[in-house]
Amino acid sequence: MQQKLNDELSQVFENAAVALILVNKEGRIKLINKAGEDLLGQGLVDVYGKLAGEAFRCVNTFINKYTVCGEAEDCTHCPLRNSFEATYNSGFNQYKVQSDLEIKDKDKTYTLHLLISTAILNIASSKYVLVTIEDITKERELHNELKEREKQLEELLATKNKFFSIISHDLKNPFATIAGFAKLLLEDYSSFTDEERESFLQMIINSSENTYKLLENLLLWSKVQVGKMNSNLENVYISDIIYEAISQLRAMA
Amino acid sequence: MQQKLNDELSQVFENAAVALILVNKEGRIKLINKAGEDLLGQGLVDVYGKLAGEAFRCVNTFINKYTVCGEAEDCTHCPLRNSFEATYNSGFNQYKVQSDLEIKDKDKTYTLHLLISTAILNIASSKYVLVTIEDITKERELHNELKEREKQLEELLATKNKFFSIISHDLKNPFATIAGFAKLLLEDYSSFTDEERESFLQMIINSSENTYKLLENLLLWSKVQVGKMNSNLENVYISDIIYEAISQLRAMA
Repeated sequence: MQQKLNDELSQVFENAAVALILVNKEGRIKLINKAGEDLLGQGLVDVYGKLAGEAFRCVNTFINKYTVCGEAEDCTHCPLRNSFEATYNSGFNQYKVQSDLEIKDKDKTYTLHLLISTAILNIASSKYVLVTIEDITKERELHNELKEREKQLEELLATKNKFFSIISHDLKNPFATIAGFAKLLLEDYSSFTDEERESFLQMIINSSENTYKLLENLLLWSKVQVGKMNSNLENVYISDIIYEAISQLRAMA
Repeated sequence: MQQKLNDELSQVFENAAVALILVNKEGRIKLINKAGEDLLGQGLVDVYGKLAGEAFRCVNTFINKYTVCGEAEDCTHCPLRNSFEATYNSGFNQYKVQSDLEIKDKDKTYTLHLLISTAILNIASSKYVLVTIEDITKERELHNELKEREKQLEELLATKNKFFSIISHDLKNPFATIAGFAKLLLEDYSSFTDEERESFLQMIINSSENTYKLLENLLLWSKVQVGKMNSNLENVYISDIIYEAISQLRAMA
């Protein structure tokens, strides 16, 4: 019966699909299950007696050849160490503390996003801490991508609103110009010379034609935005563009 | 020594921060740890010998008083059952299968988002399945919220682009009208009567003034969009708005 229970528990421990690591008062690994070995990429024989940072290959243990897990500057912020200490020293179990660990594996550096839970155990009058580690790296990366995408979309929307507001504002000017000249002509026609009349009509024409072009460009731009049209790269003379811009602005002035 | 190991394993099992449930060949619960009891909201005494659906209060066990876990229509798609069967019958361990369970608790119905892992165990010549359950409901809900937000933002952006394209298009018309009349006047002035000239100028004025108003409304709208202005609700006569719309369209026709 005793043997059966022992066999049962040891199989449950080994086959639990989440990393279970038992550490002693110094934080040194005493027991680790299969999922834990998979997470660390090392067997119990390799990690037995090691500190967490050594077993995980935390970047802080690679600063120089004397750096030890727990003694680098960053170690005071280490969520793994802090959870362990809170539980070992004060007996407070920690539940699913979000912990990001920077790992150095050969030449690569990457981040593991973990949920760390720690529980105090009393085994044969000695205190131990059981660390349960859930690896949520994939979920966290997906989450971060979604957050990044949200930020991009919000920025795009803000730019678009701002742009829209500027455009609406700028388009009002030519209409004021046009209505102004047309009213002058209508109300006070006889007081102008032929040349003046011609120049007024020409202003109206220029103003409306230039703004029409501006609108055509805007329409093109918005079609590109909604993906209805591919952009077509070509060489241009910058002086032509500047000249055109000046002449449009002059007409609106 | 044997006693110490047994004590150690049983404490590790009890204190693992993830639900561990051992079930027999029928899928009936034989052993459950503290995290498992917390997830189910019931103790081992309550759930011992029960099927998973009964212990979880799956909605499918409440269809009528005769429905049993595994025998409802939906049960063929049950990820928990399928993982259990794949592991028990074929010996293939399942790792972190996303499983959504509809739970009925008193009057409430809600969804648990779980990651289910199953492993085959041989204890005293009998086959058992160890089920490791990670509850990712909060993360999944947050994820779904982000996805929903992304969809909303994309729709908003598409609407805005579409709207912008329509506006640019519609604004082109008045300019064509204005330039057209102004050119007629300029090029062929002497051939028109005073009345015709007046009416041309009036068309130019109306067209530009109405479009100016349209732009002012757009500007207001875009200010509301960027949150610079609060909307101010007031009573209006719908006939006035229709009349204004007609007169604007007439001027552009």
